[in-house]
Amino acid sequence: MALAAASATCIIASMALAAGRADDEASPIFGIKIPAGYRDWKLISVAHEEGNLNDLRALLGNDIAIKAYREGKLPFPDGTIIARLAWSYVPSEENDKVFGHAQSFVAGAPTNVQFMVKDSRKYAATGGWGFAQFKDGKPADEALLKTCFPCHEPVKARDFVFTRYAP
Amino acid sequence: MALAAASATCIIASMALAAGRADDEASPIFGIKIPAGYRDWKLISVAHEEGNLNDLRALLGNDIAIKAYREGKLPFPDGTIIARLAWSYVPSEENDKVFGHAQSFVAGAPTNVQFMVKDSRKYAATGGWGFAQFKDGKPADEALLKTCFPCHEPVKARDFVFTRYAP
Repeated sequence: MALAAASATCIIASMALAAGRADDEASPIFGIKIPAGYRDWKLISVAHEEGNLNDLRALLGNDIAIKAYREGKLPFPDGTIIARLAWSYVPSEENDKVFGHAQSFVAGAPTNVQFMVKDSRKYAATGGWGFAQFKDGKPADEALLKTCFPCHEPVKARDFVFTRYAP
Repeated sequence: MALAAASATCIIASMALAAGRADDEASPIFGIKIPAGYRDWKLISVAHEEGNLNDLRALLGNDIAIKAYREGKLPFPDGTIIARLAWSYVPSEENDKVFGHAQSFVAGAPTNVQFMVKDSRKYAATGGWGFAQFKDGKPADEALLKTCFPCHEPVKARDFVFTRYAP
């Protein structure tokens, strides 16, 4: 392999490794891969979406994200990654029996996972954030990812992040 | 101070430190203090309770808890601690505007935090589990804590733990 081609391959490989696991597919537009170990990150908050989404969700943050949240510091620093996990919204008959009322809803099957990655230079065109969504390890398509930033624009005052920290 | 009294004081102090923060109030019956650093533990799952509770909740586990969950291993080992955090269930007008529908519910003010602590010898009378609840750092009273185990008894087949791990 010619030296120039070998160097190019090395650079691409190291960029891929920096973003996630080397053999996983990167997301269109923003080139994000599933960050290693995200399931172990600390909790930012939880939410429930009715309607078409019909899910229970948890926001997790890497250490940079959690530190920024707890310091109340905006904008989020480069290197911040926020993960949005979600599961289908399922009544729990077992819990309801114990409570004595139909009232309990728990996490069913996972739906998809989304990430926001802060890199103010690389993602300058979208407020400094790259967006990604994965289902069963497969990235969402370009059409969907184009819709991410426009929805987040209204919350520019909180650096485009909707979720507040739950103490 | 006489030697015996000094020894007794040391033993009591070290037991308290082992359980949590030395100057915090222990919970009645089970003697549990708020475990240090629980807010940083990993996520087990999330849920929503309607009715009187009207909350969004997150279950977090210490490393022993998470390991046992991921290995699918019952009973939970001694040293397992599971924390149930909860916040009031609040509609998000800001999110609803973006989604275009009233559908989004987020975490409001914290309500209380509960813990289950596994010690199969100390808590043999209650399936090996000690129970605690705290609000603003203050433990719940004896009357409330007496109700914990009877409610958990129906799920004896899963070592008295209702929550399943959310992948």
